[in-house]
Amino acid sequence: MVSSIFLRNHYYRSMISRQNRSLNSLSRNMSIGFIGLGNMGLPMCINLIKKFPKIELFAYDSNSERTSVAIEAGAKSVSSASNLAEESPEIIFTMLPSCDVVQAVVSEILATKKSGITLVDCSTISPITSMSLHKKMESSKNYMIDAPVSGGVAGAQNSTLTFMVGSNDSTFEKVLPMLQAMGKNMIRCGGPSSGSVMKLCNNLALASQMVAISEAMNLGESLGVDVKTLQDVLNQSTAGCWSSEMNNPHPNVGDIAKNGYSGGFSSNLMLKDLGLAIAAGAEKDVCIPLGSLSKKLYETVQKRGWGENDFGVVSKILRDK
Amino acid sequence: MVSSIFLRNHYYRSMISRQNRSLNSLSRNMSIGFIGLGNMGLPMCINLIKKFPKIELFAYDSNSERTSVAIEAGAKSVSSASNLAEESPEIIFTMLPSCDVVQAVVSEILATKKSGITLVDCSTISPITSMSLHKKMESSKNYMIDAPVSGGVAGAQNSTLTFMVGSNDSTFEKVLPMLQAMGKNMIRCGGPSSGSVMKLCNNLALASQMVAISEAMNLGESLGVDVKTLQDVLNQSTAGCWSSEMNNPHPNVGDIAKNGYSGGFSSNLMLKDLGLAIAAGAEKDVCIPLGSLSKKLYETVQKRGWGENDFGVVSKILRDK
Repeated sequence: MVSSIFLRNHYYRSMISRQNRSLNSLSRNMSIGFIGLGNMGLPMCINLIKKFPKIELFAYDSNSERTSVAIEAGAKSVSSASNLAEESPEIIFTMLPSCDVVQAVVSEILATKKSGITLVDCSTISPITSMSLHKKMESSKNYMIDAPVSGGVAGAQNSTLTFMVGSNDSTFEKVLPMLQAMGKNMIRCGGPSSGSVMKLCNNLALASQMVAISEAMNLGESLGVDVKTLQDVLNQSTAGCWSSEMNNPHPNVGDIAKNGYSGGFSSNLMLKDLGLAIAAGAEKDVCIPLGSLSKKLYETVQKRGWGENDFGVVSKILRDK
Repeated sequence: MVSSIFLRNHYYRSMISRQNRSLNSLSRNMSIGFIGLGNMGLPMCINLIKKFPKIELFAYDSNSERTSVAIEAGAKSVSSASNLAEESPEIIFTMLPSCDVVQAVVSEILATKKSGITLVDCSTISPITSMSLHKKMESSKNYMIDAPVSGGVAGAQNSTLTFMVGSNDSTFEKVLPMLQAMGKNMIRCGGPSSGSVMKLCNNLALASQMVAISEAMNLGESLGVDVKTLQDVLNQSTAGCWSSEMNNPHPNVGDIAKNGYSGGFSSNLMLKDLGLAIAAGAEKDVCIPLGSLSKKLYETVQKRGWGENDFGVVSKILRDK
């Protein structure tokens, strides 16, 4: 039998090795760009403007209403992604909804024939797409960092995001002050595209863990035990995890069901990440049986109209006899 | 996105509320019985004898060689489970391999028409069987505790087992000194059969977590990231769990693959627990899709001849293209 108790030293150690460095390395003459002003991108962009009021920031989104909010906050207006690149910002952030959109934006940037740009892609995209974009940027004498985030809209608003960063050291150093303006944890994952890989690997395992905890909680309830005690026992034992402790999906435990599974990390986003992870796995011939089944369950969640709910809502699907 | 970091206060809190109570409550005139002297039961029985050398202990196993080891250590000999019950021990421990064997032993005990016996069943059995045995014992004026363990053979040998205890308070108090002679953690799970329920719920979730971590680690490797860094990132993020941190199954991470997946919690035992959990779930109409798929994977592990290996060996099945 496995030991029921384990000490999680790691959870208490600092991950933020570089966070205390000074923000003084930014030149006042530099300019930056921000493309993609959605629920995440807009507050991230606004935090950059607030933190560096003297730096010129060009903002663009295909939705002009979103762009105008950034302009009111102090951003400069441009008419397109390529127009933004022509303004010669040294660093361009992207926070976009899909691989296709990121690829289209990078094509627009490269079409300007500019060089020396550092692209910081905060979108969650396929690691294979990410790697191909890294190569395209480098071959045209530009730089790239993949820096997908966790922390949700609240993290974006409060500058408490976690960035999973894939990049070379020198490129990372260059953008660190700006990442610090938008987040509080920077996890260095390795070289180009490693941030994308690790985010997807985490979320692949996370989805199945959430389903597994849902199953265990539902089984315990049906067999008559107190579900809060069950949660406590799991958290003290070998099945304890974030999904049992911090985001327990059972209707009678914790807050997320009590709040109608509103907010949190949405099932739609989990389904998107599962799709990216499984597609990348298929390309590399990786066997992902549980992740694939979890993806099917999240498709059912979406079909039931619960896609915008916290991904713990999968518990409801399982309980729906 | 979900927050990547979470503090696991629970992991550091004490679970052993009663552990410091004195062992003085045992009468020197009492006698106890121990039925089932397998890899777990024999060292547990010997630890009882060592801790309470003046208490009469009757030991029985259908394998006479195992029984003779207990007798050499100081146990008294009996010819059968019913013969043991006739010796009128106040407390009888059982550590048996299956529901059927536990049921047969309880039938033998009840056939003696004795009353006032406290049966402490440390076997991992179906919670439904456990509840029916609780009722049978009570209806014949006997008592029962279900106290399945975690901690493995090493825990049994070193008296460091964790007991998941389902019982009434007064019955628990009576056997506590003896549990303390064999283990170090007692998790009170609730009333009769709750120990069995919670152990199975934990192991149900644990099996899928192990598979999920295997999938994530394999995906990360195939996409070119450093697997030790990936382990570190998972442990800092929302997918961190015992299977990623303490028992990571990837061949290039941690110790279990390095040791050829020997020792640890065996795949056969995990498969047995999954079978019990899923059967109990089927009886209560609980939907367990991931647990059912994990069970199929562990059937494959068993067919491949790896049943005695640590249950992390499921990683090898997934990697076997």
